This record gives sequence, C-alpha cells and structure tokens, in this order.
Amino acid sequence: MDFLDEPLPGVGTYEDFNTIDWVREKSKDRDRHREIASQSKESTWALMKSISDAFSGWLLMLFVGLMSGALAGGIDISAHWMTDLKEGVCLSAFWFNHEHCCWNSNENTFQERDKCPKWKSWAELIIGSNDGPFAYIMNYVMYVCWALLFSFLAVSLVRAFAPYACGSGIPEIKTILSGFIIRGYLGKWTLMIKTITLVLAVSSGLSLGKEGPLVHVACCCGNILCHLFTKYRKNEAKRREVLSAAAAVGVSVAFGAPIGGVLFSLEEVSYYFPLKTLWRSFFAALVAAFTLRSINPFGNSRLVLFYVEFHSPWHLTTRLGHYPVLEVLVVTAVTAVLAFPNSYTRMSTSELISELFNDCGLLDSSQLCNYANVSDIERGSNALPDRPASHDVYTAMWQLALALVFKMLITVVTFGMKVPSGLFIPSMAVGAIAGRLLGVGMEQLAYYHHDWVLFRGWCSPGADCITPGLYAMVGAAACLGGVTRMTVSLVVIMFELTGGLEYIVPLMAATMTSKWVADALGREGIYEAHIRLNGYPFLEPKEEFSHKTLAMDVMRPRRSDPPLSVITQDGMSVEEVETLITDTSYSGFPVVVSHESQRLVGFVLRRDLVISIENARQRQDGVVSTSQIFFTEYTPPQLPSSPSPLKLRGILDLSPFTVTDHTAMDIVVDIFRKLGLRQCLVTHNGRLLGIITKKDILKHMAQIANRDPDSILFN
Amino acid sequence: MDFLDEPLPGVGTYEDFNTIDWVREKSKDRDRHREIASQSKESTWALMKSISDAFSGWLLMLFVGLMSGALAGGIDISAHWMTDLKEGVCLSAFWFNHEHCCWNSNENTFQERDKCPKWKSWAELIIGSNDGPFAYIMNYVMYVCWALLFSFLAVSLVRAFAPYACGSGIPEIKTILSGFIIRGYLGKWTLMIKTITLVLAVSSGLSLGKEGPLVHVACCCGNILCHLFTKYRKNEAKRREVLSAAAAVGVSVAFGAPIGGVLFSLEEVSYYFPLKTLWRSFFAALVAAFTLRSINPFGNSRLVLFYVEFHSPWHLTTRLGHYPVLEVLVVTAVTAVLAFPNSYTRMSTSELISELFNDCGLLDSSQLCNYANVSDIERGSNALPDRPASHDVYTAMWQLALALVFKMLITVVTFGMKVPSGLFIPSMAVGAIAGRLLGVGMEQLAYYHHDWVLFRGWCSPGADCITPGLYAMVGAAACLGGVTRMTVSLVVIMFELTGGLEYIVPLMAATMTSKWVADALGREGIYEAHIRLNGYPFLEPKEEFSHKTLAMDVMRPRRSDPPLSVITQDGMSVEEVETLITDTSYSGFPVVVSHESQRLVGFVLRRDLVISIENARQRQDGVVSTSQIFFTEYTPPQLPSSPSPLKLRGILDLSPFTVTDHTAMDIVVDIFRKLGLRQCLVTHNGRLLGIITKKDILKHMAQIANRDPDSILFN
Repeated sequence: MDFLDEPLPGVGTYEDFNTIDWVREKSKDRDRHREIASQSKESTWALMKSISDAFSGWLLMLFVGLMSGALAGGIDISAHWMTDLKEGVCLSAFWFNHEHCCWNSNENTFQERDKCPKWKSWAELIIGSNDGPFAYIMNYVMYVCWALLFSFLAVSLVRAFAPYACGSGIPEIKTILSGFIIRGYLGKWTLMIKTITLVLAVSSGLSLGKEGPLVHVACCCGNILCHLFTKYRKNEAKRREVLSAAAAVGVSVAFGAPIGGVLFSLEEVSYYFPLKTLWRSFFAALVAAFTLRSINPFGNSRLVLFYVEFHSPWHLTTRLGHYPVLEVLVVTAVTAVLAFPNSYTRMSTSELISELFNDCGLLDSSQLCNYANVSDIERGSNALPDRPASHDVYTAMWQLALALVFKMLITVVTFGMKVPSGLFIPSMAVGAIAGRLLGVGMEQLAYYHHDWVLFRGWCSPGADCITPGLYAMVGAAACLGGVTRMTVSLVVIMFELTGGLEYIVPLMAATMTSKWVADALGREGIYEAHIRLNGYPFLEPKEEFSHKTLAMDVMRPRRSDPPLSVITQDGMSVEEVETLITDTSYSGFPVVVSHESQRLVGFVLRRDLVISIENARQRQDGVVSTSQIFFTEYTPPQLPSSPSPLKLRGILDLSPFTVTDHTAMDIVVDIFRKLGLRQCLVTHNGRLLGIITKKDILKHMAQIANRDPDSILFN
Repeated sequence: MDFLDEPLPGVGTYEDFNTIDWVREKSKDRDRHREIASQSKESTWALMKSISDAFSGWLLMLFVGLMSGALAGGIDISAHWMTDLKEGVCLSAFWFNHEHCCWNSNENTFQERDKCPKWKSWAELIIGSNDGPFAYIMNYVMYVCWALLFSFLAVSLVRAFAPYACGSGIPEIKTILSGFIIRGYLGKWTLMIKTITLVLAVSSGLSLGKEGPLVHVACCCGNILCHLFTKYRKNEAKRREVLSAAAAVGVSVAFGAPIGGVLFSLEEVSYYFPLKTLWRSFFAALVAAFTLRSINPFGNSRLVLFYVEFHSPWHLTTRLGHYPVLEVLVVTAVTAVLAFPNSYTRMSTSELISELFNDCGLLDSSQLCNYANVSDIERGSNALPDRPASHDVYTAMWQLALALVFKMLITVVTFGMKVPSGLFIPSMAVGAIAGRLLGVGMEQLAYYHHDWVLFRGWCSPGADCITPGLYAMVGAAACLGGVTRMTVSLVVIMFELTGGLEYIVPLMAATMTSKWVADALGREGIYEAHIRLNGYPFLEPKEEFSHKTLAMDVMRPRRSDPPLSVITQDGMSVEEVETLITDTSYSGFPVVVSHESQRLVGFVLRRDLVISIENARQRQDGVVSTSQIFFTEYTPPQLPSSPSPLKLRGILDLSPFTVTDHTAMDIVVDIFRKLGLRQCLVTHNGRLLGIITKKDILKHMAQIANRDPDSILFN
C-alpha cells in the first residue's frame, strides 16, 4: 500500500462544490489511528502523542463550547444594548442597556422600571421632555432612523465582505454535513461578519431571529477550531462529526437548551451521527450553555427562543430583490414605522413570546392580565379562577390580532433578504399570538357559558379551567413544528425553554398534529425545500425511495451512449490516459483487467490521476508520453529501449463499491445514503457494465417527481 | 421476477436462532407497498386498502401504547397492593392498599397515615395488638412468609410455563432488534407469565426493579399486536420497527418519561432507527404515558424510577445457581430477614429513592430531615440555611450506610436469579444513598468550616449552600450511568422523573464523568456484556473496528480449505445439487456462470433451495434426480428424451452484495452494520473468491480481542 506511505500533496483532497467520499475518509482516519496506536508501543513520546490524539476530540469539543458560548453571550449583550439604543440612552454609562441602567438605580423595583431617571429617551435628551405628541414623534423618528442605520450597515457588510453570511445557514450546513464541500462557508470571514451583522439585523427590529444564525456561528467556530488538530483538519469525515456537534452547540446557546440542541442536530441537520458524536455533542452543548450562563447570567436565558430559518422569499419574489440594499432599507422602514405604535410589535419578539406564555398571576400589571374584579378575589391562593375580561384585555386582544397579521406578512418578506436571519422566533411568535387569542377566547366562553357540554363536568364557576398562557405555548410549538417538521427535539427545546415539564402531553400532541397537517399539505420541511431550490446534491434520508427501477435503468452509459470510459490495468500509455482525461469530464475512471474481459480491478479518481501524472512528468526521470502506465502489483520487465514505466497502483482504489445491474434502485439509494458513497460501479455476471453517481440518483429522483433533472447542479 | 408472483410457502422465511437479511426484508416491503400503490388507482376498494395500509402503522402504535399502558397500570396497582399485604390488610376492603385504605379514612392527613384505624397489621389481626416485642416478631415473621410465598410462586411459574420470562429481557431484545430470531421470546405465554411473576417478584421485596421487565412486556405487546396487520406480521424488518417503538413505550410507562423512552430506544437498544420510527415511538410513548396516567392517576408516576438490568451473577456464581427455586427462596429469606429491621431497606426502593431525593422542607418530619434548631429559623422563607445535624440525622446516616452495603451485596446476588428482574431501581438506590451520605457530609462540613477555601466566597454562615437531595439525584444518575453507559437518555429520564430542569448541568456532568470512568475500567456496558456471555450474534454499532485486516483474511474458504461450494447457473442436475446440500451445512450458495470463469450471477439460500426442490419433486411432473436445474433467464431447448428441467431463477437473489478481496475489514464491518447483511461475497478482479458471513466477522473480532471465537453460537 504505497498510497499511504508517501501521499502526494493534493491526492485525496476534493474540489470546491464537490461531494466527499465518506468511506474513503473514514478509512483514511482508521489508518491514521492504527498507525498512531502501533507507534505508541515504541516510545514514551509516541505514547503521549497517542493519548493526546485520543483526547483531542474532547478537547476540541471543549474549545467549541467555550468559543460559541462566549460569542453567543457577546451577541446577546450587544443586541440587547443596541435594541434599547433605538429608544434611548443611559446617561450614567452609555454602555448600559435599559434594564441594566435602571436595575442599579431602582433596586429591583421592576414596576418602576420605565420611570428610571438615568435612562433618557431620545425626546428627553433632545427636546428635554418625554410628554406630548411632539416628543412621541421625535422618539418615533429616532426609532426608525436607528433601525435604518443598523439594517443598512448589516446588509452592506454582508455584501462587501461575506456573502455567505446572509440567511440562517442551516440548509447549507445540512448539505455540508451530508458531505458537500462549500469552501469559505464556515470560514473566519463568514464568522466575523455574521456575528457583527447578526447583532445589527436583530437590533434593527426586523422580523427575524438570531437563533438559526447562531447555529451557523457555532459551526464556523467548530470548523475554524478544527485547524488546531491534524486529525480534524485533514479529514473531511471527522470534521463533519465536529460540525454536527457544533450545530448542537448552536441550538444549545440559542435557547439555553443543551439537550434540545443535541436532538435538533440528530433529528434535523445531521447526516452521519454515530453515538460517539452524540456523547461529544452532549458535552460540547453542556460547556457552551455553561459558558453562556457565566457570561450573561442576567440574560433572559429561559426565553431566548430559537428561530427556524428561511432564506428565500419563495414565489413572492419582489422586484426589490434585485436591489438588496434598497430592499433591506424599505423593509426595515416599513417594519419600524408599523411596529412602533403597537406595543406588542415594538417590544422584542422574545419579550413578546415571554409575555404571551406568561400565566396571569396576582401581581401582574400588564394590559393582558388586567382582568375585571381582580380585587374581589382573596389574595391567599396562587391559582386564580377564570375571570371576565376587562376593557384593557379586549384592547390587548385587538392589538394582538393586528400584530398577528403584521408579523405574518412582514416575516415572509423579511426571510429572503440578504442579512443574517432566522425563522424560529418569528414563527413561534405567530403561533403564540394565535394561541393566546384562542386561549383568552376559550376562557371567556368558559366563564360566560360554563353550562355548555364542552365545559360541563370539569369547569365549574369560579374555577381556573383555562390557562391562556398554555394555549400560547402550544400554539408556538405547533407553528414552529409545522414550519420545520421537528418533533422530539422541538418538544425538548420547549421544555428547556419554559421549564414546563407538566405540559408534555399537549405539547407532544400539538407537534404531532402540526407535523401531520403540514405533511398532508406538502412533504418538505423548510430546509429541504431550500436545499432543493438551491440545487444542492442532498440525498434526503427521511424519504423512502419507492419507485421500482433497477440499477441498469439509472446507470451510465445509457443504451444509446458510447461505452463506458475505462482504463486498463496495463498497456495504456501516459498519452492515451491524458487524452482520455481531456476528452471526458468524468471525475473518475474504472480500471479493468482488459477491454475484452471487462473484469473490474479498481477505481481511480480523475484528480488523483492528473496530479500523479503531472508530478511524475516533472520529477520522475524518463516518464514521457509513451511511458506505459501500470496499475498492477508487479510491473513486467521492460525492454531497455522503452521509456521507464509509471506505476500508479498507489492511487488505485482497490475496493470500489459494486452492485449488479439487477439490484433494485431502492437498495442502491439505501447504500448511497448509509455509506455516503459518491459513485458505485454496476456489473453483470462479473463484467463491468456502467457507473451510478450520486448526481445520477438525484437526477433520477427529480425525474420521477416530475421536476427538472437539471436542477441538480453539483456533483 | 417470478419470485414475487407466486412465492412458495416457506420461501423467504427464517429458522429459529438465525439472523434476518435486512436488505431482503426491506426490499420485500417496498415491493408490497408499490403493489398496493399501483392497485389503488384501479378501484375504490383498493384505494381504501391503500389508505388503511398507510395508517396501519399509526394505528398499531396506538394499540401498543394503549395495551402497554394498561398492563403497566395493572402491574403498578397490583404490586403496590401486594407489597403492602406483607405488612397488613385493609379491613374495610381487602383490595385497598395501605395508602388507599387510609386515604379515605383520614382525609389527606398524611402525617397520621400510619395510625389509620382500618388498616390492620398482621399482629393486630392475629394477636390484637401492635405493641411489644411479640407483635414485632409476629409482623416480622408474616413479612418473611409472604415474601417467601411470592418469590416461590414467581420462580415456579417462570420455570413451569415460560423460561424466557426471567431477567429483564433487554439484552435479548437488543439482539432481536439487531435482526436475530428467538421464537417465543416475545410471545403471549411470555407476556402473561412475565406480567404475573413480575408483580410477585417485586412484591416479594427482592432487590430488583420492574422497569427493565416492563420494556420486555411492552415488546411482547408490540410483537403480539403485529399479528393484526399483514404488513407487520409477514415482514421481520417492519416488525422490528414496531419493537423499537415498543421499547420506547416500555421505558415511557416504567418511568412516566415518554421522551426519555424514545431516547433510550435510540441510544441503547435499537439497531435500525429511522426518523419514521422516531416519530412513531414518540406517538406510542405519548399514548402509553397518557393511558397509564388515566388508569393509575394516584400512582407515584413521578418517582417510579427505572432499572438497568443484569441477568447473570457474573463470576460470583453460587452453587445455589443449580437449584433455581431454592436459590430464590434463600435469597428472598435473607433479603426479607435483613431488610425488615432497617426502615430504609424495608420501604420499597422507589419510596427510598423518593425520600433521598427530597430536599428537607420546613414541614418535613422524617428522620432524615430532623435537623437541630429548626425552630429557631423564621418560618417565612422557603429556602432553609444549612443546619447542624441532630442525633436523628446521624442515626439515619448510619442506617443508610448499612442499607448501602446491604443493597450493593444483595443486588449482585439477586440479578442472576430466574425471576423477572431489573437493575435500574436498585442501582439508582445505591447511587442515591451514596450521594445523600456525601451531601449531608458536605453540608455539615460547610456548616462547621465555612471558612475553608472550598466554601469561602459562596457559602456564608446561615446560607443554604449545600442541598443533600441534589447530591442524591446526581449520585443516582451517575451510578445508573456507570452501569448502563447511557448519557443523553439518562439525563432526560432524570428530568422527566424529578421535574428538576434546573439541575441539568450537574446531571450532565455526572453522567459524562461516570461514563468516562466506567469506560476506562471496561468498555462494555451491562447489555453488551450479557449479549457476549450468551453468545448472541450481535454486531456492536458503538465500537469501532480498528484492526488492519482485509476481506481476504476473514473470508471462507481459507487457503488450506477445499474451494468454495458453488452452483453453476446451468448444467447441474437435481441430484448433484441435493448431494451438495446434504454434504455441506452452509446456509446459502453462490451461483456462478461456470466453474472455470467463477463469474458471479447471484446467491441462493439453502432453505429456499430445499423447499423448492422438494416442492417440484412432489408437484411438478417429470422432475426427477437427473433433471437439470436452471438459474438462467431462458432455458435452452431440451432433448425430448431428457427429463423436464427445473427453473429456479425465482429463488435466486440477483443482487448479492460483493466486496473485493482488498477491501479493508473496517469497511466490511461498516457495510454489515449499516445495511444489516447476513453474508457478503468476495471477488478478485471480477472472479468469485469466497464468502464472509456475520458469524465469520464476529469470530474474527472475538479472535482479535483474544476471546474464544467459538463463543459465537448462532448464525
């Protein structure tokens, strides 16, 4: 196996926008592992190296957790500060946000928070007063101006420095985890720009969330930190294990939900998720959650909800889409102008969700909890009976209904924009508003009509039978579940967010129902739809291939095509092979015993072949165009006059995957999915017949689904 | 494909103690599905059938959830009643347990529960008084007698009717889920006897848990209910999907932890767990938890902890092991005699754990919470500062220490016995006792030495800095984690059990640490060790195969062996094939073009071949010993004088899996694991060389690990 002894630089690597060969990568890693293990018996130094190698995975997880947790903490704090900056500034220390500024001055009296003397609204600062219509307009204008400034900065930075930083990144990460290569997508520039623009985009008040992009940020951290360890730097499969764990870390810091994060990575984004990765993700998510908690202990870690993402404006592409900066500014202006007057859209979306989830207690003074005759109820018990709604509650209902319509419309427009954006929080907000409206409606029904069949038996007058906050929670889970088709991970995230273990049954029922309903309307979740729209080569592991075709129907060459381009294991000259390479664009060639027998020996990749021949021509004496290329184990003795032969067994893959031409395509698809193949050779009675690549399969599947097979763009 | 058109009865089925071929089973199911789908366009009736087929999976899940939940509720109630029967009986209604009996009489005054007039201890019933040493001895004797009676009944029933009902069954279920067939293991007799004897074994007070066996009970329900639907009855792979979900249901009802159940099935027992099964498991677990809650709403569903199982007494095999009934009686007697005097061992193990997890509140009157100068503390705040231990607490500590030693020893002996037994609760109890002891120790240290470096800064005098209940919870998780090597699922189960979401960090840290420590001492968890001891053919998905061997080193025939037994696709007579079958014991034969070329055509299973030839000889005119067997697509014209040929292409697998002789064994192992193969053929340059079976791989792995390769008993 001279292949591994002296690998040429470049041999065994991949081009951009190509798919990796999982089997080869994993096998390379096992070879490396074996080598270290066998050396470790020889010297203490090698033993140390072997131990450090074994621990490097855990160490890397520790770093990923620490870095992502720290970044998420920084993003939380900055976004909070900049969101408040739109409304005013802290006089005593401008780097304090509203809460922090007033926390010190008022000593825990939350009720008085808005009247804290050190916090000045822009109207107070500029015209010296906060009352009257003029001050209101002044605050309004400043709010819109700041929003426009933030969103302009965000979109410009993304355009100028890191186009990959827009959107949430989850569909791309899913594709990368399945084995695709997009260079720079998880690089340091993307990380830097995404972190900054995420803060700007969130602060601008656009209807987007920071949770999805945090998954991208965590994956960037994972990818960058991989460079510290040779094991992960050089192996694409091992690196993807780290990225799977990093995705878990992202959700863990986004929602303060480490277990939900691990399940999200398992259920939603990962392709290859062995138990070892499960344990490591668990560890990394734990470290990250802990780091975040230490950095931002006063952060609303219990309700920093997470967003499902959505990049493209779907079929509703506006003309503005051609002018991304203008688009962002217009949407920001509309959002800011419409959001300011309604208190439920002015507050940050996670605050809104938190308020909607809240069950009205005795001390709650919010508009939503201002029921009639609260004072009549004795203040002893904590559980309040159902009460008739007051005028305030009805006002809140109208405002919420308007907010619902506004959120739904503006969110659809916002998703396609070229700024970092997530969909989790906006869709949870939509669900939570709808749920709360329904909940209050039910409560009033139960109060006024407790003799109805629906309520009889369990809802006596004066009892607390309807909890509107629970309706909001279930609505949020159902809406998010419908968008992403998450089930188990969603319920666990909701647990960890709200601490509401007792609501497991309604939450589970809501997510299952929303999944069924959404599946009935269209089987694709948001990420899958996005991947398909972008033409990425992603072999969906969730859907069954159910068409009855055989390998021979999918393989190339087709019956009318010229025969398969093969290389014989001996007897071909360098020139002949070079002609074959330039004449075709295939990424690899089967090597056979002879053209007549078509008995398969192995498979050689185009890239490896090109690099090896180039290298031999430059460095190896006597290798010319007429030199013979040998893939055999032993080279037969050459005539003294003939040029020196070129031995290439080292780059030959001696264990190519083969299936027979009668193999059903469902089995072939299964093999491709489970083993992560790039290509597979097709034989009939031991003779080589053709080849099936991942792209062939995707095209075939597109054809069956009556889609354009040319929508699959990459290998 | 005449194979599927008219399958002979028996063709495509498996023998007992054999491994199924996942690829074939899944492909059979997809064929069936396609057939139904194509028929559904023809008539309304067929459309209805197709719809009902699509929903049958969910319907089956509903039934499994309902049945398992109902059974678990019955077991809970009966075990509770029979446990109390050992101490006394309810006079007003003998079918009430202690709590239920006194609940009615005392109206919620739990403190007075022990003095409820309707509940009579045996001493009160027989000698009319509950005081004095004689009454104590009378109670003691009755307690031991009932325990002996229960355990005798349990072991006798298991021996007489269902030997498979002993132990927890989890290792066997794990093996079955990996594709092994053990007929009767999940049958109705096992279900019935296991349910009854489980109640008896738990009630007898032996140191065992009912949670592991509940997984077996739920899997029996799943298997039996599969018979309702052809789709699941006839397909071994589909049935295993149901069993995976049933395992989740088992844990769900055992601990009231539906999500933990799904994760347990995923992390610990399942072999093939597609996302579809995840969703269905989730649904079934939900239904089961809901059913259990409806049946047994007063059950201590929050603390019916779950047990890790352990069948065999390891290296500590007693001589008693040869006399299972005597063994059970002796162990029961020892357990009962030693357990009665110590209140911590007399109470049921789940009560014990519940008490250990409990944080001492102000109203707690238990011995463990009877700290000194409680009365000095103002009764306003809920958080109690650390307090010095009183004499009572020290007594409790001593009793707990004794209970720890007793539990550890008796549990090891109990596991190997021939009664249904689980290990989850006993090992959690051991961990919880150790944790509580450490916690109280730390608390006292912090109280008396709050100036130590360890406590300085965060533990000021009069503050509540140590929570002994949390130590117990972490100890229980750590101990259970060390035994089973569960991680994520364990933490989720602990959440769902205790509702303690805020303790996520210590729980995660404890499970990771205990996994690391246990892995350093020996890489096998309890189930894996048990599977290995029993010689089941289980290809562990968690461990990496890291030895550098090639397929040619593992394949049969070895160099010194006679060549591989093959059948040619034409030219062999019925007699020749029959001789080959009787001379060899292989479970299948490769079919080649000719002996000279050794070019592979397909693979035929011995069982299918035997059935087909027998059937043809009986029913097909003119098939005699000299008839030719053809596996080709077209039969060449025969001489009129020659006997009619036997066409067997129908039973030929035209897409056998092949690898080249140079394929690294790690890749081969990966293929076997991921695709669930039984065998794989080995080729060299297109010629058939040999065969690798699952058993060959397991033997090879045993050899590498310096174990006896003959310990692998089955195919």
